[in-house]
Amino acid sequence: MAGNSFGTIFKLTTFGESHGPAIGGIIDGCPAGITLDLDAIRKEMDRRKPGQSAIVTQRKEEDQVEFYSGLFEGVTTGTPIGFVIHNTNQKSRDYSHIKDSYRPSHADYVYDKKYGLRDYRGGGRSSARETACRVVAGAIAKQFLKDINFDAYVSQVGNIVLQKSYDELDLSKTESNAVRCPDPDTAKQMEDYIKSIRKEGDTIGGVISCVIRNIPVGLGEPVFDKLHAQLGKAMLSINAVKGFEYGSGFAGVQMKGSEHNDQFNTDGSTKTNYSGGVQGGISNGMDIHFRVAFKPVATLLQAYETIDSEGNKVQAQGRGRHDPCVVPRAVPIVESMAALVLADLALLNRTIKLDP
Amino acid sequence: MAGNSFGTIFKLTTFGESHGPAIGGIIDGCPAGITLDLDAIRKEMDRRKPGQSAIVTQRKEEDQVEFYSGLFEGVTTGTPIGFVIHNTNQKSRDYSHIKDSYRPSHADYVYDKKYGLRDYRGGGRSSARETACRVVAGAIAKQFLKDINFDAYVSQVGNIVLQKSYDELDLSKTESNAVRCPDPDTAKQMEDYIKSIRKEGDTIGGVISCVIRNIPVGLGEPVFDKLHAQLGKAMLSINAVKGFEYGSGFAGVQMKGSEHNDQFNTDGSTKTNYSGGVQGGISNGMDIHFRVAFKPVATLLQAYETIDSEGNKVQAQGRGRHDPCVVPRAVPIVESMAALVLADLALLNRTIKLDP
Amino acid sequence: MAGNSFGTIFKLTTFGESHGPAIGGIIDGCPAGITLDLDAIRKEMDRRKPGQSAIVTQRKEEDQVEFYSGLFEGVTTGTPIGFVIHNTNQKSRDYSHIKDSYRPSHADYVYDKKYGLRDYRGGGRSSARETACRVVAGAIAKQFLKDINFDAYVSQVGNIVLQKSYDELDLSKTESNAVRCPDPDTAKQMEDYIKSIRKEGDTIGGVISCVIRNIPVGLGEPVFDKLHAQLGKAMLSINAVKGFEYGSGFAGVQMKGSEHNDQFNTDGSTKTNYSGGVQGGISNGMDIHFRVAFKPVATLLQAYETIDSEGNKVQAQGRGRHDPCVVPRAVPIVESMAALVLADLALLNRTIKLDP
Amino acid sequence: MAGNSFGTIFKLTTFGESHGPAIGGIIDGCPAGITLDLDAIRKEMDRRKPGQSAIVTQRKEEDQVEFYSGLFEGVTTGTPIGFVIHNTNQKSRDYSHIKDSYRPSHADYVYDKKYGLRDYRGGGRSSARETACRVVAGAIAKQFLKDINFDAYVSQVGNIVLQKSYDELDLSKTESNAVRCPDPDTAKQMEDYIKSIRKEGDTIGGVISCVIRNIPVGLGEPVFDKLHAQLGKAMLSINAVKGFEYGSGFAGVQMKGSEHNDQFNTDGSTKTNYSGGVQGGISNGMDIHFRVAFKPVATLLQAYETIDSEGNKVQAQGRGRHDPCVVPRAVPIVESMAALVLADLALLNRTIKLDP
Repeated sequence: MAGNSFGTIFKLTTFGESHGPAIGGIIDGCPAGITLDLDAIRKEMDRRKPGQSAIVTQRKEEDQVEFYSGLFEGVTTGTPIGFVIHNTNQKSRDYSHIKDSYRPSHADYVYDKKYGLRDYRGGGRSSARETACRVVAGAIAKQFLKDINFDAYVSQVGNIVLQKSYDELDLSKTESNAVRCPDPDTAKQMEDYIKSIRKEGDTIGGVISCVIRNIPVGLGEPVFDKLHAQLGKAMLSINAVKGFEYGSGFAGVQMKGSEHNDQFNTDGSTKTNYSGGVQGGISNGMDIHFRVAFKPVATLLQAYETIDSEGNKVQAQGRGRHDPCVVPRAVPIVESMAALVLADLALLNRTIKLDP
Repeated sequence: MAGNSFGTIFKLTTFGESHGPAIGGIIDGCPAGITLDLDAIRKEMDRRKPGQSAIVTQRKEEDQVEFYSGLFEGVTTGTPIGFVIHNTNQKSRDYSHIKDSYRPSHADYVYDKKYGLRDYRGGGRSSARETACRVVAGAIAKQFLKDINFDAYVSQVGNIVLQKSYDELDLSKTESNAVRCPDPDTAKQMEDYIKSIRKEGDTIGGVISCVIRNIPVGLGEPVFDKLHAQLGKAMLSINAVKGFEYGSGFAGVQMKGSEHNDQFNTDGSTKTNYSGGVQGGISNGMDIHFRVAFKPVATLLQAYETIDSEGNKVQAQGRGRHDPCVVPRAVPIVESMAALVLADLALLNRTIKLDP
Repeated sequence: MAGNSFGTIFKLTTFGESHGPAIGGIIDGCPAGITLDLDAIRKEMDRRKPGQSAIVTQRKEEDQVEFYSGLFEGVTTGTPIGFVIHNTNQKSRDYSHIKDSYRPSHADYVYDKKYGLRDYRGGGRSSARETACRVVAGAIAKQFLKDINFDAYVSQVGNIVLQKSYDELDLSKTESNAVRCPDPDTAKQMEDYIKSIRKEGDTIGGVISCVIRNIPVGLGEPVFDKLHAQLGKAMLSINAVKGFEYGSGFAGVQMKGSEHNDQFNTDGSTKTNYSGGVQGGISNGMDIHFRVAFKPVATLLQAYETIDSEGNKVQAQGRGRHDPCVVPRAVPIVESMAALVLADLALLNRTIKLDP
Repeated sequence: MAGNSFGTIFKLTTFGESHGPAIGGIIDGCPAGITLDLDAIRKEMDRRKPGQSAIVTQRKEEDQVEFYSGLFEGVTTGTPIGFVIHNTNQKSRDYSHIKDSYRPSHADYVYDKKYGLRDYRGGGRSSARETACRVVAGAIAKQFLKDINFDAYVSQVGNIVLQKSYDELDLSKTESNAVRCPDPDTAKQMEDYIKSIRKEGDTIGGVISCVIRNIPVGLGEPVFDKLHAQLGKAMLSINAVKGFEYGSGFAGVQMKGSEHNDQFNTDGSTKTNYSGGVQGGISNGMDIHFRVAFKPVATLLQAYETIDSEGNKVQAQGRGRHDPCVVPRAVPIVESMAALVLADLALLNRTIKLDP
């Protein structure tokens, strides 16, 4: 399996299955001289961890990260940061219900066909547990980019849509509720809806919006590594993501150029921001804003029919403790991946001119 | 500038500005032993070239590709394929209207800020002319993947939406009209609308849908290089793209898991395909289908106000020969980028098991 | 710090300082389906570990490797193999003798200047302890390449030179003595010499020869990634290495082409092998043989004069338990790096033709 | 074929066969703002070109490089620099003597076995003609690193050895003779010897020494991408190279640590330089010096016996215009590859600290 690394200079490589002894990663290319705030990393991980509220999975997993290298007296040394999160909850339970069958819309079938075998205990490598490592690395990237603000929030759950744009919202309220929607009324509706979905043993999709503010002009590498292309890849690599749009997005296709063009102010900022902070693949200093679509989680607490590895029809029953809606816990993951993209582009941007 | 390469094994690197002597590229990693059909490459390039119909730019550019290496007696040798397309139309015209000012929603401003200078003649490196090289490489990738079918088409122009899904359409009709919409009635509406937009000197956005059929199970590399993440990056790297969704996409967020899960048939295929042919980042053998949003082109044939490099307000007038709507010519680019992604993943997939 | 990854497909990334809690690594791209022999890995690590004989460092370090992922029921799954080796011997000793001064011909000075700070406890990241991770990965690469034989041995210590070529030696005897020289008489001389050097508190250099047998024709990627260029980089990346030559090497420069050309047998093998098994950067099926020069270890158990970080002259005294000669313990490292190179090239070689 | 790119940030990708229409390359990552001296590039290419003196191949090839992109008004723009060198001398001659047989110690046999076919006209991709592209890129890298001096020279031809070290020589005299040895007497001997070798229709090997001066402290990326490991790979990737050593090299293995350690002066420089300017893989500010061994060219103007692709013995006769000794023309190639390595490491070194 290739594909377990992300980034060119600020590069994260991860390992680990949901039910092995540990997951972890290596951050290579993190600059020397950053005094790491380990509490802030912990806080980010707590935003992602299971069992944090009534509307997410009740699985308990403390997600204690241990740093094994790259730090000396609390400061990054420029050497690779190795870290490990032990899996404390992978109890030896009964997997017979999934061992011999493929769960619909999971990765069971394709892993088996691709690799010729699979670790059938839970999702294995395809489990969203892997994203814990992204949050560790993203939290470090945020500290490197301490002047840049990353604010993701839930803007849609099922057909409950937050109708306000990010500049009409008080984003400091995102963490004030379990669903991570900064508008309290909408948050309440979403929360109630997720609870009803859970009662059915069903799941529901959602949208996360993200805004990145206070970003310098010039980040992003044309042609293939445009800022928004890297962001898009980063988001689409998160489990359950089905779509990505930035700036005017899909709605922008209905606009005329005369409406869509962002007119300049004399300081180089623009009067509108349909560009979403990116022009020609390079940040123009305006807010970067984008939206990420998440499908409903495939694991249901319902009976279902599927096939086994021989192609026989089998009856199965979903069980365990799963998320009825993935977006509340995915908010810090979206921010983390955005921070990883920008940390890498910020470092690359130091190399582009004769005199930096 | 980093970022001018795409792919890990089947890798395209491109160069060239719109108004320099030539553009071109190098394809490294193309397997040996492919008898190249140069007419098929030419045909793909003609689908992208300017001046091909009444609804695209009237600029004439023949786009003759010259292959300098990697071929012997018509067969790929495994060595890098170097190719060049001379710019025959970069006449020494007057650029004073853009030399000293930044066109709104173009890359002029960000290039200048990022690199400290820019080639102000046309779009330079940020021009969509660069995509001609992608089509050359994509056409070769298609020949390598000769059993896989790539079919892109225009499914929306402004608010004119093709209401049928790809399996209700006869995709062989895509090339039968200038707008590249396989439904003749909708195509006619789109074409008329684009003509009216052109008369206003304005532009309009659109959506391209793409379906990839007859794809083997198992392509795609978890975790960060998931098939759809690579596809998304590929599409978002195309000029003017603002969004990407696959399978159920943004609409899928409103679905419940019990509706969205794709139930298996006994042969491993699925009864529905909300997954869009990709599960866990790996192809499951079903059709891959996705949609790409293009903003309206920023170059208008209208007067506009903008700023110069000193931050002074200036009046400017768009002129020349530009596309009122970019999607008809972008259809082969979408297919090409998809083919590049899959060629690379198909080669990577040969390395994943002890016994291939 | 970039540069902690090795390989394109079969890729090792490592982390860890000599005096942190642990070192470790991630092997991405190891093919699925290999039944790992963990005892064989342990055996390779024992060949490298400190304290194994009277002529190496007497430091005790057990080098227990823990695998955290990528294995299921003893078989590689294709997912990244994460592993950790805890540092059990990094006792809280007194580093004041090196904290404030730079040891000559160590990396202390350059790390401080480059990164602005350094972990002064032992060598930190520049310690040869890092090579333990290479041996883990190399042992796995060897199991993937089970038909290829990697045999390194000590062929020179100081001016004691093993005068026989590899085909005059019984390489099964390499492990029969502490110095890892397959000729018992020469081994005895070397061993005695190393013991006398140790008594002086001094160190001495040496040469490791390596032969790789039973290798298929066709491994190696021209132009920049020639097989011997990759091997050379691999060897030069090992601590203390000062030179690399393969085939006829430096001696070959005195030969005429008419002597040096390897004449073909009718089966494609060659009568001589001055090419060292590589022609045009690609294996030709003959034995690959090369030599690696190691300088004397810089850590002496003697008094020395040096400077501190302010540039003041200071007196210091080497102490602790160090290797008087590095080559006996470097033998498995040379083999491991060779195996990593060939594992990667073997996988890449699957991608080069239309029909593999 | 992978492997046609060199570098991480300052990255050269090349294409081209000796007998195709052209060779060329793309330099991605060259910083913006360098005013290129095209005459200096031309001069470097003239040092490498065929036909320049009586002791090199008499083939005439003018090696005119055309730049297609990346320059605007003589200054690099940060966009990729595409360049092409047309092959003007690939006349349609008779290749029947090599078409059906494999020349000993050439790449004919391995290319055929690896790729399943080969371009039999001359060396194809394995021809040293490819190195012309390295010299173009290297000349640009030198201009980027204008404060660093790269001086390579011939220090051995056959068994004629230049006995002085680089600091005893006047390196400004290297270009004063055809053999590029800075010591006139030795140069004369070498030249006479090469002429006698040529008369025999034979060839002879040689050594190139190189010194890099005025280099800042801190270049080089541990662990795997150590400065000298990258240099070694760079040199070993040049056609006909069989060995690389730096600093004390192979001779250093006979030294004791107490002799070999480079004692510090109070300014951080060292009294001796057995380290060869690199410690722990990082430049320490002292001169970097290394030696590169070249085998005798395999193409002889003599009759020889070989095999054809069926394994039959065949008689063949070398002909044409080849180099009796490759080192005089390889001097600028060695410098170019060294410059490419350092340009890349210099850019990477901008990314390693929080505050650059």
